[in-house]
Amino acid sequence: MSHGRCVLIVCDGLADRPLYQLNGSTPLEAVDSLALDEIAGTGICGIMDTLSPGVPPGSDVANLALLGYDPYKVYRGRGALEALGCGLSMRAGDVAFRTNFATVDEDLVVLDRRAGRRIEHAERLEEALKGLSLPDYPDIRVVFKHSVEHRGALVLHGGDLSRMVSSSDPGKRGLKVRMVTPLDDSPEAARTASMANELSRLSYSILKDHPVNADRRKKDLPPANILLLRGPGELPSIESLDEKYGIKSAAVVANALVRGACLSAGMKVIEVPGATGRTDTDTLAKGRYAADNISRFDLIYLHVKGADNASHDGNLEEKMKMVEKIDAMARYILDHVDREDVYVAITADHTSPISLKAHSGDPVPVAITGPGVRVDDVTRFTERACARGSLGRIRGHELMTILMDFLGRVEKFGA
Amino acid sequence: MSHGRCVLIVCDGLADRPLYQLNGSTPLEAVDSLALDEIAGTGICGIMDTLSPGVPPGSDVANLALLGYDPYKVYRGRGALEALGCGLSMRAGDVAFRTNFATVDEDLVVLDRRAGRRIEHAERLEEALKGLSLPDYPDIRVVFKHSVEHRGALVLHGGDLSRMVSSSDPGKRGLKVRMVTPLDDSPEAARTASMANELSRLSYSILKDHPVNADRRKKDLPPANILLLRGPGELPSIESLDEKYGIKSAAVVANALVRGACLSAGMKVIEVPGATGRTDTDTLAKGRYAADNISRFDLIYLHVKGADNASHDGNLEEKMKMVEKIDAMARYILDHVDREDVYVAITADHTSPISLKAHSGDPVPVAITGPGVRVDDVTRFTERACARGSLGRIRGHELMTILMDFLGRVEKFGA
Repeated sequence: MSHGRCVLIVCDGLADRPLYQLNGSTPLEAVDSLALDEIAGTGICGIMDTLSPGVPPGSDVANLALLGYDPYKVYRGRGALEALGCGLSMRAGDVAFRTNFATVDEDLVVLDRRAGRRIEHAERLEEALKGLSLPDYPDIRVVFKHSVEHRGALVLHGGDLSRMVSSSDPGKRGLKVRMVTPLDDSPEAARTASMANELSRLSYSILKDHPVNADRRKKDLPPANILLLRGPGELPSIESLDEKYGIKSAAVVANALVRGACLSAGMKVIEVPGATGRTDTDTLAKGRYAADNISRFDLIYLHVKGADNASHDGNLEEKMKMVEKIDAMARYILDHVDREDVYVAITADHTSPISLKAHSGDPVPVAITGPGVRVDDVTRFTERACARGSLGRIRGHELMTILMDFLGRVEKFGA
Repeated sequence: MSHGRCVLIVCDGLADRPLYQLNGSTPLEAVDSLALDEIAGTGICGIMDTLSPGVPPGSDVANLALLGYDPYKVYRGRGALEALGCGLSMRAGDVAFRTNFATVDEDLVVLDRRAGRRIEHAERLEEALKGLSLPDYPDIRVVFKHSVEHRGALVLHGGDLSRMVSSSDPGKRGLKVRMVTPLDDSPEAARTASMANELSRLSYSILKDHPVNADRRKKDLPPANILLLRGPGELPSIESLDEKYGIKSAAVVANALVRGACLSAGMKVIEVPGATGRTDTDTLAKGRYAADNISRFDLIYLHVKGADNASHDGNLEEKMKMVEKIDAMARYILDHVDREDVYVAITADHTSPISLKAHSGDPVPVAITGPGVRVDDVTRFTERACARGSLGRIRGHELMTILMDFLGRVEKFGA
C-alpha cells in the first residue's frame, strides 16, 4: 500500500511583521506569490510556534523542532550539530565546539572575533591544527575542521566529557579570551574545561607564527592566530526519522548548522549545485531536485536560506526578491510532483522581522496541501491569512507528526 | 447551590476527512444534522486533539483522555481496562490480559487467531478454564472471563507482577504461539512472563479435548483450543471523577473496553437495552436514558459506537446513517433536558477516515451548549466549521476540565 510522500519546504526567517514601508503589510503579504497561495488555497493552514509563543528560535533548535523533535527535551548544544554539518563525525559521549578563527594580541586580548572574516588559505591553518593533541588526556582525540569564512568546529572524541562548560569567546573585542569554566559540579565538566583551555593555548602557539599569518600581517590583515571555542554541545538524544516513522528521508540544505540538525536525525543530506545558503542561492535548482527525486524518498526536507540573511541585513528589497524566488521554486514543485501522492507543506523556521534584523518569537504561517487534508477557507500563504486556518495554532515539533500521519506513518497510541 | 449538570456525547470515530464520493465533504458535512448543528449554533465550538496533533488514538487512551486524564501520564496498558469492562475486578498490583480464543495445531501453530470468531457455548469453555491455577505461584489467583465472540480477559490477582511483558499472539496465522518474554529487567516481569507461558500451555491442555471443541470439530468449525494472551495491563493510576470533582457520574456505554475506562474512573456504568456497540445500536434508547436520568447525576458520559465500525468497514452509507441516528439521539436529549441547567457537549474520540478504514491523527470537532458559554459564530457541528470556533484547538484531557468548570467543579489553583 502506498503511503504517500511529502516535500516540506522550510524558508529560513521568511515570516515578518507588518512594515510601515509596505503600508502595514508584511513581505509575504506584499508580494504576489501565486504558488505559495495555491498551497494555502488547496490546503489546510495555520500558525505555528516553532518553540513556544514568544520565544525567538535559533536555527539549530528551530530545525530540530521542524524535524519533529521537542528541542526542550532533546537539544544538547549547538557544537555537535555544527560539527556534523562541517562533515565531522560525532558519537554519543563526544563533545564539540563551534570555533572562530580570531585575532588576539600577546596578552590574548581579542582584537577581532572573526580575524577579518575572510580567511584565505584556511586549509593550511586547518592542516597545522591537525597537530592539536592533549598529552595529559591520551584517551581523547582532537579533530578540527574549518568550514566557511572564520568558522569551523572542533570535536573531542572519547569519554568522560561534558558539554556543561562555558565558551572562551568574550563576545566583543577589547576583552581577553575567557577561561573556559565548568558549569556544573561534575568531574567531566571540570576535565572538559581544562582540555578546552589547553586547546585554546595550543591553538595560539600553533597559529601565531604560521606563515599564513605572517603573510596576513604583511598585507595588513588581522592574523587568524587563535581558535575561540563556542557553543559546546553533544549529539541530541534522538531516534532517527527512519527509526521513528520507518521512512526514507532526504534534506536539501546548504547551511552547515541546519545540515547538522538533519544529519543528527539520520537524514541523507543532499548538496544541490548552485545552493549557496545565501540570497543568491539557486532556489529553482533546489526545487527541481526535490520534485525530480521525491519518488526516491518518503520525505524531502527542503531548507531555503536567503530570506533570513536579508532580514539580518535589514534589506527589504532582497527579502521581497527571496519571496519571489521561493514562489518560483514552489511553482516548479507543484507542477512537477504527483499531487495525488505527494503532500507539499510550506513554513518558516522562525520570524525574522526586517525591523529587528534578528529572530523574533512571533509564530510562522504553515500550509499543507495533499490528499484528504481538510481544505479550509484560507487563500493566501501569509502570517495573518494562515492564522484563520483550520490547523489553528500548533507547535513546531507537532508539524512532522501531522505530516507523518497523512503518510500513515504514526503508530496508534493505545488499542 | 445548583452546579448544573452535563451530558457529554462521545461518538466513536465520527470525524472524517473530505471524501471524493461526497464532492470533498465529510460525512458530518454531507448529512443534514439539525440537532448536532443546534448544539454548535447555540454553543461554543472548537477542534480537539484527543492525544496530540497527528497521533492516532486507540479507543482506550482516547476515552481516558476524554474522561479528563492525560493518557501519556496514566495509561498502563489495555488489559486492565478490558478486564474491568468484562466485569472482572482489578486491584492495584494485578495484571490483566485481553484474550482471544484461538485455534492451534499440535505444534501450537496458529490456524485461526479468533477460532472462527463465533464461539457457541463459550460459557462452558469459561467454566472449564476456572481450573486454571499456577501451582508454582500459590499466591497468585487466576480469573478468566469470556466477553463476546472470541474475546475475553484474564486477570492475575496477587503481588510482584508486572505488565511489562510481551504478548503470546503472533499476530497472524501460520506462526507459532509466541513465548511471552519480559520487557524490562525486573524480577516481576520475568515472573509474570513465566506465569503467562504456563497459562498459555495450561489453556491448551484444558481446551484441546473439551466436548465443546469435539463438537466444533464434528461441525467442521475451528476448535477454540487455546487462549492467546494480549495487551497486558495494570489499572491506570488515577483518582476517580468523584474524587477529582466531587460529582456523581454515569457512563452509558456498550463497548467493553470503553466501559473499562469508565469503570477505572470510578463511574457507574449503565447498560441500556438495545445498545449493542455496533451500527445497529439503539442510539435513541441511549439518548432517552441520558435525558431521563440526568437529574440523578452530575455527568452522563454517553458513548456511541457505530460510526467507527462503519469506518473500519469502509462503509460510507452506514456512516452517514450513523450521523442521522446520532442526530436523532441528540434531538431527543436537547428536547428533554432542562437547558437552563444541563450542558450538552458533543465530540468524537478520534477521526476514523472511511478512506483509511483505521484511526487517524486528525483533530475532532467539539461543541458545548449550556448556560453562560461564549456562543460563537459556528453554526454546524463539522470538522471544519468547528475549527473556526472560540474554543480554538484543545487537547482531549482538557475538555473534562472545561466542562467541570462550567459545572463549578474545578478548584482554583493558587490563592
